Amino acid sequence: MTPVPVALGPHADPALEDAIVRGGGHCAPIEEARALIWNAGPDRFPATLPESVRWVQLFSAGVEEWFSAGIIARHPEVEWTSAAGAFAATVAEHSLALLLAGVRSLPDQITATTWRQQEFFGRVGTLRGARVGILGAGGIGRALVPMLTAVGASVVAVNRSGTPVPGAEVTLPADRTGEMWDRIDHVVIAAPATEDTRHLVGATELDKLGPRSWVINVARGSLVDTDALVTALRDGTIGGAGLDVTDPEPLPEGHPLWSLPNAIITPHCSNPPAVRPQAYADHVATNVTRFVAGEPLVARIDAGAGY
Amino acid sequence: MTPVPVALGPHADPALEDAIVRGGGHCAPIEEARALIWNAGPDRFPATLPESVRWVQLFSAGVEEWFSAGIIARHPEVEWTSAAGAFAATVAEHSLALLLAGVRSLPDQITATTWRQQEFFGRVGTLRGARVGILGAGGIGRALVPMLTAVGASVVAVNRSGTPVPGAEVTLPADRTGEMWDRIDHVVIAAPATEDTRHLVGATELDKLGPRSWVINVARGSLVDTDALVTALRDGTIGGAGLDVTDPEPLPEGHPLWSLPNAIITPHCSNPPAVRPQAYADHVATNVTRFVAGEPLVARIDAGAGY
Repeated sequence: MTPVPVALGPHADPALEDAIVRGGGHCAPIEEARALIWNAGPDRFPATLPESVRWVQLFSAGVEEWFSAGIIARHPEVEWTSAAGAFAATVAEHSLALLLAGVRSLPDQITATTWRQQEFFGRVGTLRGARVGILGAGGIGRALVPMLTAVGASVVAVNRSGTPVPGAEVTLPADRTGEMWDRIDHVVIAAPATEDTRHLVGATELDKLGPRSWVINVARGSLVDTDALVTALRDGTIGGAGLDVTDPEPLPEGHPLWSLPNAIITPHCSNPPAVRPQAYADHVATNVTRFVAGEPLVARIDAGAGY
Repeated sequence: MTPVPVALGPHADPALEDAIVRGGGHCAPIEEARALIWNAGPDRFPATLPESVRWVQLFSAGVEEWFSAGIIARHPEVEWTSAAGAFAATVAEHSLALLLAGVRSLPDQITATTWRQQEFFGRVGTLRGARVGILGAGGIGRALVPMLTAVGASVVAVNRSGTPVPGAEVTLPADRTGEMWDRIDHVVIAAPATEDTRHLVGATELDKLGPRSWVINVARGSLVDTDALVTALRDGTIGGAGLDVTDPEPLPEGHPLWSLPNAIITPHCSNPPAVRPQAYADHVATNVTRFVAGEPLVARIDAGAGY
């Protein structure tokens, strides 16, 4: 089989060149290429693509910037894939770290400077036997399920179609998200940012959680109504929040979330650059293999759905 | 089958009475009992036991206080069992919480009050692909293995006999502990406190770890040479330490561990009282069932080994 010409840009990257070759392609200039592996954001994306390019692989799991820049709409004849799934496991791990830190009351213990055992005896909880809702059980959510069940939690998953998520106790379709809130102790938000998911978690939803419930967001800040969250954190109607993403983002200096003791902010670093190259290269190799074989690509972007 | 008379003391506890009945026993005064379920420490333990008592079930996983008080040596004809295993899963969960918090650089992020993304990009790590040593793979260690493998870490286990631990990549016998240190990225200490394990982790061992390695101790403070640990934390020759137990314990005010930013201290609360009763009751029911049936009890104390 002749290797399929695949372009890589805008940055040179030996691991991705290797991934293209592993997948049965060879690195070619974009004028000759049938596919483009793009390893940056939308700013430097070419204004036009040669007709030969039938597939573009993007570098991030969330692609709303690409939609708002109009780039995807401009190329309806091209198949677009995101990096969804490539970084799923590391983001899932981050959400587990935040949830465990919250449930185990680590923020207060990390800042303590004396042996406050009696106090923490009453505050350290467990995920064992807890029910965790995963709002948006795509790649990240699916990677998170076995991590949660390994510590003895059960999972109520919500995804678009309601297709059962392996390992979840219950999977609900997105139009029945409301039923999730009464069933869960904690929630991990991992849904894409779209117009439909803006403020999916607001005062009404937070009110259904309890004073030991943690809300983890590793998706996008816009899914949570920040003002409602701040109120719930201040009033103690929920236990706390672990936020890798915020609205606004970056979170400005002096924002109340910085000083609430039951909020953990990690500055959008659930998928840190140092761990990305190998995960992305593996994802690219998988998709080049599928492209060469004429099989369906993974992490295809649905231009209509917006993710 | 006539229910076997089992005494419960010193505290009344409906959950334990239920567990005794579930196991095929009935609650009886100690004078008539064939077994004693003890739900407190050694201070109030009876000076003598009636000859009818053949088995004593203790309330904690670590029993060195019972050895140092001479109580176990005083009753060589009695079978002693600890609560080892009963609380294994919750302690394992705590150790995972500490390790993930460390690897994901949560202490620095929890105390940050501005969006320091670039800095944390370089500091947030992952357990995926990491090798974690479990020093003392008894009940806690065995419960921890599937939690670690679920996040993509592999395990190098050490136990007394070297009997392979399910899910571990390698299991080493205790006399080959030295070989573990060169193979691992992080270590979780879960071994019993005995004369042999005092300062099992000192300067020599810490030197074999790297600047991103975390040391988690959920066993007993005496296993770690605290001065050597403080030096390693100060010099950054290891990444950090997550300590549920310390030496001395309680950790006194002003101790350097309280102010080191890469030390997480949780004041011996990995197994908080609120989660204990159900776990202990289940353990008691299991052992009463086995006692009634004449089967080997779980968590038998080895009077010779000292745990």
